[in-house]
Amino acid sequence: MRYYALCAFILAGSTVLSGGSAQADERAIGAVDPRIGTGGAGHTYPGASVPFGMVQLSPDTAMTDFRHSYAWAAGYQYGDPTIMGFSHTHFTGAGHSDLGDVLVMPIAGDVRLEPGDAAVPGSGYRSRFRHATEVEKPGYYAVTLDDYGVRAELTAGKRVGWHRYVFPQGKPAHVLLDLRPSIYDYPGKVSWARLHVGADGTVSGCRMTRGWAPGRVLCFAMRFSQPMTARTLYNRETNVPYRGFKGPGYQPVDHDAQNGRALEAVFDFGALKAPLLVKTAISPVSEANAIDNLTREGAGWDFDARHAQAQAAWEHALSVIDVQGTPDQRTQFYTALYHVMLAPTLSTDASGDYRGPDYEVHKANGFDFYSTWSTWDVYRAQQPLLAILRPDLSAQFVRSLVVSAQDSPFGLLPVWAYQGLETWCMIGYHAVPIIADAYLAGVRGFDADAALKAMVRSATYGPYGDLADYMKIGYVPIDKEAEGASKTLEYAYDDWALARMARAMGKTAIADEFERRSRNWRHVWDSKTGFMRARTTDGQFHTPFNPAAAAYGSDYTEGNAWQYSWYVPQDVPGLITAMGGREKFTAKIDALFDARVDPAIFRNVEDISGLIGWYAHGNEPDHHVVYLYDYAGQPWKTQQRLTQIMQTQYALRPDGLAGNDDLGQMSAWYIFTALGFYPVAPASGEYAVGRPFVSKAVVHLGNGHAFTITADNLDDAHPYVGAVTLNGHPLPRFFLQQKDVLAGGELHFVMQATPQTK
Amino acid sequence: MRYYALCAFILAGSTVLSGGSAQADERAIGAVDPRIGTGGAGHTYPGASVPFGMVQLSPDTAMTDFRHSYAWAAGYQYGDPTIMGFSHTHFTGAGHSDLGDVLVMPIAGDVRLEPGDAAVPGSGYRSRFRHATEVEKPGYYAVTLDDYGVRAELTAGKRVGWHRYVFPQGKPAHVLLDLRPSIYDYPGKVSWARLHVGADGTVSGCRMTRGWAPGRVLCFAMRFSQPMTARTLYNRETNVPYRGFKGPGYQPVDHDAQNGRALEAVFDFGALKAPLLVKTAISPVSEANAIDNLTREGAGWDFDARHAQAQAAWEHALSVIDVQGTPDQRTQFYTALYHVMLAPTLSTDASGDYRGPDYEVHKANGFDFYSTWSTWDVYRAQQPLLAILRPDLSAQFVRSLVVSAQDSPFGLLPVWAYQGLETWCMIGYHAVPIIADAYLAGVRGFDADAALKAMVRSATYGPYGDLADYMKIGYVPIDKEAEGASKTLEYAYDDWALARMARAMGKTAIADEFERRSRNWRHVWDSKTGFMRARTTDGQFHTPFNPAAAAYGSDYTEGNAWQYSWYVPQDVPGLITAMGGREKFTAKIDALFDARVDPAIFRNVEDISGLIGWYAHGNEPDHHVVYLYDYAGQPWKTQQRLTQIMQTQYALRPDGLAGNDDLGQMSAWYIFTALGFYPVAPASGEYAVGRPFVSKAVVHLGNGHAFTITADNLDDAHPYVGAVTLNGHPLPRFFLQQKDVLAGGELHFVMQATPQTK
Repeated sequence: MRYYALCAFILAGSTVLSGGSAQADERAIGAVDPRIGTGGAGHTYPGASVPFGMVQLSPDTAMTDFRHSYAWAAGYQYGDPTIMGFSHTHFTGAGHSDLGDVLVMPIAGDVRLEPGDAAVPGSGYRSRFRHATEVEKPGYYAVTLDDYGVRAELTAGKRVGWHRYVFPQGKPAHVLLDLRPSIYDYPGKVSWARLHVGADGTVSGCRMTRGWAPGRVLCFAMRFSQPMTARTLYNRETNVPYRGFKGPGYQPVDHDAQNGRALEAVFDFGALKAPLLVKTAISPVSEANAIDNLTREGAGWDFDARHAQAQAAWEHALSVIDVQGTPDQRTQFYTALYHVMLAPTLSTDASGDYRGPDYEVHKANGFDFYSTWSTWDVYRAQQPLLAILRPDLSAQFVRSLVVSAQDSPFGLLPVWAYQGLETWCMIGYHAVPIIADAYLAGVRGFDADAALKAMVRSATYGPYGDLADYMKIGYVPIDKEAEGASKTLEYAYDDWALARMARAMGKTAIADEFERRSRNWRHVWDSKTGFMRARTTDGQFHTPFNPAAAAYGSDYTEGNAWQYSWYVPQDVPGLITAMGGREKFTAKIDALFDARVDPAIFRNVEDISGLIGWYAHGNEPDHHVVYLYDYAGQPWKTQQRLTQIMQTQYALRPDGLAGNDDLGQMSAWYIFTALGFYPVAPASGEYAVGRPFVSKAVVHLGNGHAFTITADNLDDAHPYVGAVTLNGHPLPRFFLQQKDVLAGGELHFVMQATPQTK
Repeated sequence: MRYYALCAFILAGSTVLSGGSAQADERAIGAVDPRIGTGGAGHTYPGASVPFGMVQLSPDTAMTDFRHSYAWAAGYQYGDPTIMGFSHTHFTGAGHSDLGDVLVMPIAGDVRLEPGDAAVPGSGYRSRFRHATEVEKPGYYAVTLDDYGVRAELTAGKRVGWHRYVFPQGKPAHVLLDLRPSIYDYPGKVSWARLHVGADGTVSGCRMTRGWAPGRVLCFAMRFSQPMTARTLYNRETNVPYRGFKGPGYQPVDHDAQNGRALEAVFDFGALKAPLLVKTAISPVSEANAIDNLTREGAGWDFDARHAQAQAAWEHALSVIDVQGTPDQRTQFYTALYHVMLAPTLSTDASGDYRGPDYEVHKANGFDFYSTWSTWDVYRAQQPLLAILRPDLSAQFVRSLVVSAQDSPFGLLPVWAYQGLETWCMIGYHAVPIIADAYLAGVRGFDADAALKAMVRSATYGPYGDLADYMKIGYVPIDKEAEGASKTLEYAYDDWALARMARAMGKTAIADEFERRSRNWRHVWDSKTGFMRARTTDGQFHTPFNPAAAAYGSDYTEGNAWQYSWYVPQDVPGLITAMGGREKFTAKIDALFDARVDPAIFRNVEDISGLIGWYAHGNEPDHHVVYLYDYAGQPWKTQQRLTQIMQTQYALRPDGLAGNDDLGQMSAWYIFTALGFYPVAPASGEYAVGRPFVSKAVVHLGNGHAFTITADNLDDAHPYVGAVTLNGHPLPRFFLQQKDVLAGGELHFVMQATPQTK
C-alpha cells in the first residue's frame, strides 16, 4: 500500500517524500523502493531479481534506436506511457547498455506483431499502463496492462523468471515472444536466432547478438502452466543485404522451429479461467543448459511460493545492516543497499558451466562464476563494501575475475564484462584494486598467487590502453592513446593497489616495482596550471588546454581537468604538496564545488551529471573528492559538503539518483557515507570519516562481528560532527582503520549545529 | 606428364584435344582430367577430394563480390592469373554458390594481410601461377606459387585436407589463414568467427556465415608438421554499424584466441629445410568435432600415403564402369564419371554427429548423412545413375533425405541443401523422384514407409511454392507465385514419381491421388499457341506472351516457353497428342533445335547456355528432349541430335562443359548418353535408347551383375544405329527396361553411316 501512497507524491512532483507516520512493514525489504533510479539518469530497472541473480525480469518501456538510447539503458523510463513487454536481462544503472533478452508480452484479443508507436494506442503490441497499478518490491513487480486488461506479476529465482498473467474473462489469451528487440537496438544486432517448441511444450532457443559484448549468445527455455491451443512462429526479417531464396520459413508457420535473424512467436491459449504462469530460465551457454536450469530450478507452478522465496532471499541479503531512522531514511538506505546487491550477476549454469571471455564453455569447480563487471565504477565503493559485508561472495567474485583472466585470450582480468564476455568499455585495470582490496580486507578462499599473476599480467600487457608507453615513459601519451591523462592517473592508483597486495604477500620485488609505478601520477601534473594534464610522447603538455573542456575521447575520461585532477587516492599528501599545501588545496576543492557552471557545457558527455559547481556526483571520478578535506585537516568541510550532496543528489523519487547508479557504485557511496565513512583509496585499509546520516546502524560483518554506528543529536539542525569515538576512545584523526571495523565495535558520533573547525 | 602435354594444346586454343598415341596410365583415374569444367560455365573445381567427401580442398583464384560472382562459383576460373589460397569446401558445377571455407596460403618472405589485386603483382598475399606448373588428378592437385617460389601439393581424405608446401631455401616460411573470404562474398557474410591456438599447436575455430544457407556454422581443426616459431592473430574488422569499444583484440596479438567477424592469422615457421605439411579437418557441427575428425582420420605426416589412399579411393569408385575407347573418349568419359561422384557430400562427423535443417545436431545411426543436394539438377540422371551403380550409397542418400525431412522444421525433404541446411533454391520437390527412382530401381536399406510419408508431406505442404493453390486449382497461378508454368509441370512429374512408388508399395489411395495430380500438366498447356503457359488464378493464360522471353522470376524457371514446353516426361504420348500428333511433335522438336537464336537474348539469365537453336544443353530443363524423338518413332533423329550435342557441348578443354556441371548432372547425362540410353522419366523403370559413343563399356552394377554395351563399326563416319540387340535379341522399340539392365547382359549396337528411318 505504501507504494501507492508514495506514488501520489511523486506524481505531484514532491521533491522529498515523507514515508508516512507508521511503517506497516518493519522488515528491510519493506523499506526498499525499486522505483528510485528508474527515472532520470539513474538507469535502474524496476523489475524482479534475487541478489546477484542471473535473471533480471523487468518491464521495458522502450528499446530504442542506438543513437538515442542512453536514457533507456535499463529498458524502462518512469515517464513512459507504455510497456513493450517483459524481458529477462537488464543492467542496473549502466551508462552504456545491452540485454533486454527474451521479450514476453501477454496479449488478450487481437495480436499485433510489431511493438508499435507508444504515442499511438493500438498501433502495436505494446500496452498503456498507469503507475497506480504498479507494485515494485525486491523480487516482485506487478502492473496492469490497460490495453489488454491483463494483470501481470513477475518474480524471479536465480536463473528462472516467473510470470503470472490474469487475462480478462472471455477473451482469447496469447503470449507473444519477440527475439528481435534488444536494449541499445540497432540494425543487424541479432546475428542469428533459433526458436524451438519441444514435444512437451517447452519453448527454447538462443540468439546471438552483436552488441556491447559482440558475439554474445543467450539461450532460454520457457514453459507455460496451461497447454497451448495453437502457436505460430515467425521470421520477420526484411531488407537484408543477402536474403537468399524465400522458403516457407519466411511465412508464419505453426511448426516446431524457426531459425533466422528476426524471430517472433505467438502462443495461443484460448479463453482462460485460471491465471497463466510462464517460467523462463536463461543460460549464457546453451539451449540445453537453459532447459536444464529450468528443470532444476523451476519445478512446479506455485508463483506465490517463488515470490516468497525471492522475498526471503532479499530479506536475508539486506539484513546485513540494521538501520534505525525515519521511514524516509530507511527507504533511501535500504533501496541503496538493494541496488548494491544487483551486480555482479551469476553467470554459471546449474551444471557449473559458464562462458568465458574466450567465448568457450568452462566448468566452475567449487565456486559460482559471476559476471557483469563494471570495474571502473565498482572498485571504488561497491566492491569494498561487499568485501566486508559479504566476504563469502567477495571470494567468489575474486575467483570469477581470476578465472576470467585465465580464460582470456589476452590473459587479462575483466575490464567491463558481462555474461563472461569482455566489452573493453572504460579504462584502467580496476579488477586489480577489487582483488587487492578484498585480499587486504581479509577475504580468502582464492588462490592469491594466481590472482597476483593475473593482476601483473593485466598491468603489463602493452597493447591494452597503451600500457606499452606507460611502462616505458611513465605516462600514456595523448598523441598515441585517447584519454591519456585519466589513464595515467588510474593506472598509477591500480599499480599502488597491486603493490599493496604484493607487499602483504611478501612479494617484495613486485611491490617495489608497482610502488614505483604508482608515482606516475606526477608525470601528468602541471604545476603551472594546477591541473592534471595529458602529455604527448615528446613530454610536452597537450595544447590547447581548457580545464573546463570535456568530450568523449579527449584528454580525460568522461570528465574535464577540474574533475580529474584529484585522482591520486594513493598519495593525497603528495597531491596536497603538489597543489601548494593545505590552504591552496582546500581552496581549490572549494572552488570545485563553488564554481558557477552551466550544465549545458556537458551536453555532449551524457555521463557527467549531478553537478555542484564542477563537482559531478552523477559520475565516478569525483566520488572520493569530498573526503579529501579530511586529509588537509578540514573535516568539517567534508561534513558540510556531504550534507549538501546527500540533500541534493539523492531523493525518494524515480529520478532520485543524480546519475547512473553504475552497477551499485552510486548506491554504495550512499551506504558508506550514511554510515559515516568512505574508502577513499580501496586497498589502503583505511576509511576517511565523514558524518553519519542515520542515528544507528548495526553492520553485521561477514566475519561474524558487528560494527555499530551511533549518532547522538542527529537531525537537519545538527549536521556537523562534534565528537567521534571508537569503542569509547576519541578518534585521533578523521580516519578509521579497516581492521578496527572488521574487529567489530562501535563508532559513536555526537552531532552539533556548527562546524568543529579545530 | 600427360597433363602438361594437354596443357600446351589448351593454351594454343585447340578445340578438341588428342590424348596422344599411347596411354601411360591404364587405370581409370589416369584418364580423368579435372581441368575440364574449370573454365567457362562448367564451374567445377580442380582441387582434391575423395568420392562424395566432406572436404574439397582446392585453389581459389577469386572470391568475388556477390554481384559479379557467377563464373567463380567454384572459386577457380582457368583463365585467372593468380591464386588467393587453398580453401577446404567447394561446390562442383553449381550455378549459385557459397563455401570457400578456411582459406590457407603458404607465404615465403614478407606477409601481406589482404589478398590484393590480381592485376597488380605484390599488392596482396595472392600469387601468380602458371598452368604449366599445375598437376590435377583425382584426389591430388599441385601448383607452384611463383611469387613465393612455393611448391604446393594438396590431397584429401574424407574429412581431412592435406597440404604439402616446399618453401624456397633460406626464406622465412609462413602460413596465412584467412577466415574472412567466402565464395559469393558480400559485406557482413561472416556473422561471427572464432580462432584458437591450442597448447599442442592445434589451430581450431569456427565461422558462422550468412550466405546461401543462412546461419551456417563451419568449424575446422588444423595441425602443422613443424612447430611454429611465432603466430599473430588478427581481427581485421572495420566499418561496422556498431563496433563497440576497442580492446586489444583489434590489434594483432600473439595469443591463443580471437573472436570476431574478420579473423586472420599468420603462423611463422622460420627458414625450413623440410617440407611443411598442414592437415585440416572440418566439421559442420562443432570445433570439438573438427578436432575429433582430425584426430581420428588425420594421423601421422605421410602425405604420399594419403595421396595414395585418395587415388585408391578414386580408382575403386571409377572402376564401376570399364570403358574401351580412344584416349580422348576415355578422358571425356572418366572425367564425367569423376564429376558424377563429387556430390552429394559427406556431412556426418566421425562421431556420427550431423547438423540438420533445424540447425540442431543429430546422430546418424547406422548410416552416413550426406548433404549437398541440388535436387532440381540431380534427380534427372545423376541420382538415377548412382542408384544402379552404387545402390549401397543410394540407400545412404535416401536415408539422408528422409532424416532431413524428419529434422526439418517444416517436415520437408531437401530442396537445395548443403551441410544439412536448406537454401530453398530452385523449384519442385525433386527429392521425391530421387527416392522413388531409387526404390523402383531396387535400392533398399531405408524405411520406405517413412520415406513415403516425407514425400507426401513435401508434396502437400501448402506454403511451399504455392502448393496450396496447386492442390486446389490444379496449377500454380502466376499472379500468386512466380514461375507458375514450370512449377506446375515439375510438380506434376514429381507427383507421378510419388504415385509410382506408392503403387509399388501397395498404397493405392496415395497412388491414385498422385496419379490424378500428375495430369496437372494439362492445366498449363495452351493448344492455341502450342506452348506450356502460366495461368492466373482466374484461369486465363498470362499475357502478354512471348515464347522467347526468359527472365528470373518469370513464368518459367531459367528458361522460356520453347525450352519448358517439353516437360511431361511422365506422359510423353499425352504430350504428343496435345501437340497434334507425331508429325507435328517431331517437327516442333526440329524447330527447337533448328531455330536461329541470338544467345544475347539470354544475357540476363546466366544459367541458359549451350544453345543449339532454342535447345539449351547447358541447363537442365531440356536434358530429356533429344530422346523424345524415340517416343514419336524417329529414333534416328535422337541419334543425329545426340551426335550434334556430344560434338558441340563436351570437349577436352577447361571450358569443355557447355554449362554448369550442376553437381554432376551434366556429366551424368554424358555417361548415360555415351552408354547409349537415358532415363527420360526417372522412376519409370525405362530408358530411352540413343546411340553409344564408346565401342565397349562394362557396367559393374551394384547388385553384382555386369551390363555390357558393345558397338560395332563405331566411328565418326558411322553415327547411326543400324541394329540393336539385348542379349542377342533385337530390341522391339528404342527403349530399354531397367530390370533388363539390372539383370546384367549385353546391349549390342551395330552402327552405320546412314539413319535407319524405319
